Amino acid sequence: MKICTTVQEMRQARATLGTVGFVPTMGFLHEGHLSLVRRARKENEAVIVSLFVNPIQFGSPDDLANYPRALERDIALLKEEGVACVFTPEAAEFYPQGFATQVDVGGVALELEGPSRPGHFAGVATVLTKFFNIVQPQRAYFGQKDAQQCAVVQRFVQDLNIPVEVITLPTWREDDGLAGSSRNSRLTGGERRRAPVLHQALCRARDLVQAGERRRAVLEGAMRDVLVKASLTEIDYVTVVNPETFQTQDMVPENALALLAVRLGAVRLIDNLPLG
Amino acid sequence: MKICTTVQEMRQARATLGTVGFVPTMGFLHEGHLSLVRRARKENEAVIVSLFVNPIQFGSPDDLANYPRALERDIALLKEEGVACVFTPEAAEFYPQGFATQVDVGGVALELEGPSRPGHFAGVATVLTKFFNIVQPQRAYFGQKDAQQCAVVQRFVQDLNIPVEVITLPTWREDDGLAGSSRNSRLTGGERRRAPVLHQALCRARDLVQAGERRRAVLEGAMRDVLVKASLTEIDYVTVVNPETFQTQDMVPENALALLAVRLGAVRLIDNLPLG
Repeated sequence: MKICTTVQEMRQARATLGTVGFVPTMGFLHEGHLSLVRRARKENEAVIVSLFVNPIQFGSPDDLANYPRALERDIALLKEEGVACVFTPEAAEFYPQGFATQVDVGGVALELEGPSRPGHFAGVATVLTKFFNIVQPQRAYFGQKDAQQCAVVQRFVQDLNIPVEVITLPTWREDDGLAGSSRNSRLTGGERRRAPVLHQALCRARDLVQAGERRRAVLEGAMRDVLVKASLTEIDYVTVVNPETFQTQDMVPENALALLAVRLGAVRLIDNLPLG
Repeated sequence: MKICTTVQEMRQARATLGTVGFVPTMGFLHEGHLSLVRRARKENEAVIVSLFVNPIQFGSPDDLANYPRALERDIALLKEEGVACVFTPEAAEFYPQGFATQVDVGGVALELEGPSRPGHFAGVATVLTKFFNIVQPQRAYFGQKDAQQCAVVQRFVQDLNIPVEVITLPTWREDDGLAGSSRNSRLTGGERRRAPVLHQALCRARDLVQAGERRRAVLEGAMRDVLVKASLTEIDYVTVVNPETFQTQDMVPENALALLAVRLGAVRLIDNLPLG
């Protein structure tokens, strides 16, 4: 497995490979990431994984500084998975003095995580555009856990005619329902025990929809009840949206998507569940 | 010569070509464009030219509506030049309902034409990113007449790691000094006779710099005098900048660039001249 730290190294390594599946990550890999890598191996001649904690998608310097890192362990895991190439660029080369370009996405990017994390999706779209131009993959793999990010990526890839197929795979979950996230490692023992309540709240909305409920206010109220009863009161949003627009409707559509963002102590967790 | 009107046609045609030199234009071709095409032919196995009046780079609907068009004549000219492929996309396919992405450039894009034409450079950067992703050229050719645009293109191509070499060729001029521009066709007879004064003003600044003058205020005053004496008083800007930053300094650098934007009746003309 080749490890590339510069753009030039990465371009040279890529030129030796056939069809490429690309898995962009911020490292501190979990089973969710590895499920993307395994699918990418099946569908392409080679897999490239990036490990890069992208500074421009963090709003808060604390959040960036506290984001967990485990480069050597990540590299060992990817080697076992038969990855052809790991790309760990330096921020100084990726964003040199004078860097002045941003890929701004409107539409779906303006909802939920958009206002909650100003600049976040522009940072994501900008770094992915750079990666796509350097790695030139046939396919790129993302987890449904970041449902809105997936929609934003689909949007700008289509709008800018980037020649890559964007593939979204189901959220990987722990046995107790907690969605895989690098941030889970920052939960205390007590927080970790309460964290599955996020998924339980989403499941409650799904059960109600399957029983015929379509009123958004009722669904949101039910999810909020589940959270509050478990003393998860620092709720950023709990909602049900149209998955094409990420906008709310009073009566939710058949293919509605429930999403939430909740703070447990120092950690902000997000999760979502298709209700249809 | 193949004429492609859809993205799919263009991708298919491109796949049959080797190295490609790309000349993006808004049509109504003049000798300046053709000089780019000829250089592109020398340096690449095939040349692709786009003819597309890009709606999102126009601030005013009037300016867009009045932009001159001559598709059949353009196609005949390009055929004579041995161009492999002409790409004339439809705006409805390029910017479909729901289109929501913009490539925003800061730095050099924030000066001069930036505030004069809000949204212009974002429109240029967005359409060129689309073209680069579809046409996938090895090299792209631009005229120095749009000096700031050239700097903006260099900026976002570098920032987004787009694998294309950006090549800027000298401004093509009529015998009387007027810089080639599709907009020249919209000048009345009287305006056309006065239009070379733009170039004369720039030459005045160059003569002064060659005689040792470095004070920006003096150079700008001298250029303004030349314009005003010819009754060209609708001056958007007349200035001398650092060509790397497009910012002004009180004492101009050795490689300074003089630029101006002047309105003649209904037509806004721009021009520039390296003073070093």
